[in-house]
Amino acid sequence: MTTDFATTRAMFHLPEGVIYLDGNSLGPMPRAAAARVARTIEAEWGEMLITGWNKAGWMDLPSRLGDRIARLIGAEPGHVVLGDTLSIKVYQAIASALEMNPSRRVILSDSGNFPSDLYMAEGLCRTLGAGYELRVVAPEAVESAIDDSIAVTMITEVDYRTGRRHDMARLTAKAHQMGALTVWDLAHSAGAVPVDLAGAGADFAVGCTYKYLNSGPGGPAFIYVAPRHAEIARPALSGWLGHDAPFAFEPSYRPARGIERMRVGTPPVLQLAALEAALDIWDMADMADVRARSLALSDQFIAGVEAACPDLALATPRDHAARGSQVSFRHAEGYAIMQALIARGVVGDFRAPDILRFGFTPLFIGADDVARAVAIIAEVMAGRLWDRPEYRLRARVT
Amino acid sequence: MTTDFATTRAMFHLPEGVIYLDGNSLGPMPRAAAARVARTIEAEWGEMLITGWNKAGWMDLPSRLGDRIARLIGAEPGHVVLGDTLSIKVYQAIASALEMNPSRRVILSDSGNFPSDLYMAEGLCRTLGAGYELRVVAPEAVESAIDDSIAVTMITEVDYRTGRRHDMARLTAKAHQMGALTVWDLAHSAGAVPVDLAGAGADFAVGCTYKYLNSGPGGPAFIYVAPRHAEIARPALSGWLGHDAPFAFEPSYRPARGIERMRVGTPPVLQLAALEAALDIWDMADMADVRARSLALSDQFIAGVEAACPDLALATPRDHAARGSQVSFRHAEGYAIMQALIARGVVGDFRAPDILRFGFTPLFIGADDVARAVAIIAEVMAGRLWDRPEYRLRARVT
Repeated sequence: MTTDFATTRAMFHLPEGVIYLDGNSLGPMPRAAAARVARTIEAEWGEMLITGWNKAGWMDLPSRLGDRIARLIGAEPGHVVLGDTLSIKVYQAIASALEMNPSRRVILSDSGNFPSDLYMAEGLCRTLGAGYELRVVAPEAVESAIDDSIAVTMITEVDYRTGRRHDMARLTAKAHQMGALTVWDLAHSAGAVPVDLAGAGADFAVGCTYKYLNSGPGGPAFIYVAPRHAEIARPALSGWLGHDAPFAFEPSYRPARGIERMRVGTPPVLQLAALEAALDIWDMADMADVRARSLALSDQFIAGVEAACPDLALATPRDHAARGSQVSFRHAEGYAIMQALIARGVVGDFRAPDILRFGFTPLFIGADDVARAVAIIAEVMAGRLWDRPEYRLRARVT
Repeated sequence: MTTDFATTRAMFHLPEGVIYLDGNSLGPMPRAAAARVARTIEAEWGEMLITGWNKAGWMDLPSRLGDRIARLIGAEPGHVVLGDTLSIKVYQAIASALEMNPSRRVILSDSGNFPSDLYMAEGLCRTLGAGYELRVVAPEAVESAIDDSIAVTMITEVDYRTGRRHDMARLTAKAHQMGALTVWDLAHSAGAVPVDLAGAGADFAVGCTYKYLNSGPGGPAFIYVAPRHAEIARPALSGWLGHDAPFAFEPSYRPARGIERMRVGTPPVLQLAALEAALDIWDMADMADVRARSLALSDQFIAGVEAACPDLALATPRDHAARGSQVSFRHAEGYAIMQALIARGVVGDFRAPDILRFGFTPLFIGADDVARAVAIIAEVMAGRLWDRPEYRLRARVT
C-alpha cells in the first residue's frame, strides 16, 4: 500500500487559518465523524433500541476496532480490545503482570512517563500493600535499572514532553533476560511511529485513540496482551463484559477467553462510532509511509526553527531512531510564546515547566504547513510578540 | 414543579409500532440527542480542537452534569461526578470504603446484586489478598448479616431481575450501627424511584446513566461520596484527572478536593453530550410525580397480566415500598415468550433463568401503552404463540 496523503488530508476538517500541530494531544475531526455518530444515534439507538447490541454489532465493536488498531502497532489480530480510559488499561496491565510475577514487588518506570501512569501504579501499590513499590528512575537510567528485583516495567515509549523514544525491542529483551514483564504505553506511538509489539516480544501494551488516531475527545483506550499470556493474565478489574459468559449472570467471575477478559463494563458506543470514522482513514495508511513523512516534516521544522530562533533550545533528540512524531523546544517563557502562536493560528501546546510541543501528523499536515508555521514562529520570536501580559495569563490548559 | 408527561414523551423518539418496556435496560433516544452530539463534534471538536477542553467546557462536564443527577438521587450538590463505567465506579467506592475501615475485611453483598458488582469485588479481594472476602447472602438475609465483621455493604437498591427494592435508610442505619460503611448501587434506582442519599446517610453510591436516565449505549457512570467522607476517601484508581493539579504534571498523586478525586482519565465527551440532551428532559421532571405514575402503570400492568395470564407468576413484590420501577414475571419458557412479544412490538427483556422483565418509565410510557401491552401478552399466552422453534433459538441477549 502507498499512502495517498492528499486523500487522507481531505478526509479531515481543519478550521480556517489554523496550522494544527497538536494532533498529538487531540486529533482533528474526520469529516465523516458527525454523520457516522448521528447514524449510530438515530438509525441504531433510535430505531433498534436495546437490540442494537446485537443487530448493530455494538457488542463486538471493541474487538472489531481493536483488530484495525492491531495492524498499526504490530499486534497479532485478535489480541487488542478497546474500552475505558488509558489510565484504567494501565492499571489492568500492571496488575496482571504483577500477579504473573508473584515473587517480585517492584514496578519500574521513568520520570518521563506520563503522570497518570505513575499515579495509577502508586494507587495499585497502595492497594496491594505488602511491600509493593513503584520505582521511578531517569529515562536514560531505565536500562540499567532493570535488575532481578523488577516484576514489571511500565514505560511510555515516546516521552510526552520531549518526544524522546525508548528502544522497545532492546528494553523488552533486557526485561525478559532479567525475568521481568513489560507494559508499554503507546499513547504517543500508536499512529505516530511504526510499532512492532509482536516483533519486540512485548508482554502488555496500552494506548489511547484520541491523539494520533483521531477518535475525538474522550475516545476509548486499547489494551494488548501477548498471545502467550492471553489465557493466563487475570484482569484485576474483572467486570461482567470480561466474563466468559456475561449473559449467563453467574455468581462468580470466570475470565473470558483471551483479550476479551480485559473488557470491563458497557462499551462507549458513540465514542467507538467516532473512532470507526477515524479508522476508515487509518485503513488507507501504511505506517512506513507515515513515518517517512513524519521524519521529513519534523526535520524541516527543526532546521527552520533553529535557523531563525536561537533562543529556542531543542528538547527532542536529533537521532531519528530516538524520537517519536513530535518536536519540542524549551524556553523559560514557553507558556506565553505558545499563547502568542495560538493567537496567530499555529496550534501546539505547552507542557510545564518550559516545553513548547509540536506534533507532526502526516495524515493532515504537509510541508507547506510546516513552512508557514516556521515563518510565524520566527516572527513571534524575533519581534518578542509573546511579551504581552495577556499571553502570560494562565488558563487551565490541556 | 408538576411534571408534564405529554411534553416529556414528545421529547423522545420511539420507533413506530413499539411499546418499549425496556427503558430499564437501555433508555430510548431523546429527539435532541443527535443534534446535540453533532454540535459537540462539528462546532466544538471540529472548530475548537484542543481548546474545546476549556472553551466548550468539556473538562467540567463530569461535575456539571453530576449536579443535575444529584437532584434526582437526593445527593448534596457538588458531590456527584460522572465517568468510566459502573463497574469501575463500584471498584472505586468499595476500595475507598475498605481503606476507611481498615480493621475489617469483609464486603457484604447479596445474591440479587448485579453480577458485575460481585465480580469487581471478587477482583478487588484478590488484589488485596490478606484475608479480604466478599460475603454473599440472600437478599432477605442482608439485614441480619450486617454484623461487626462487615467493613462495607455493597448493595444494589433495586434487584435487576425481580425489581425487589431494599430499604436504603434502614440498611444504612443498621450498617452504621455495626460500624460498617455502605456502597449503594443505583443502576435501577436513578430516574426510577425517588432516592434520598443524604437523608439515608449513605456513604457511597454509584449508578449508570444509560437506563432510566437515557444517555445512550455506553453512557458514563456516576459516583457519589458523602460530604463527610469527601476529603478522606482515597480512590484506588487514582488517575491524573483526579489529581489536585492535573496540569502541573507532578510526579506523585495528590487527591483533588472532594468528589473530583473520583475522576480517573479523560472524560467521554460525546457520551456526555448525549447525556446532556437527556438531562434537559429530566430537568422537567419531579421524581415524586415520576414515582406516582410508575406505580400506577405497574399496578395496572400487574392487574391486567394476572387477570389474563394465570401461567405467569409475579416475581416482583406487590408492596409499593418494596419495589422499583419494573415488573417481572416468571415462566419456564420465559425466553421464547419474550421473543414472541418482541416480534409483536412489546419490548421487555429476559433474564436467566426464567424472568420476563418489563420496565415502566413514565417520561415516555402511559396507560394506553400498558393496556395495549397487556392485550398482546394475553394473546400470546392464551394462544401459546410463543411455542415456535424460532423463538427458542438463543441469540446473545442483553
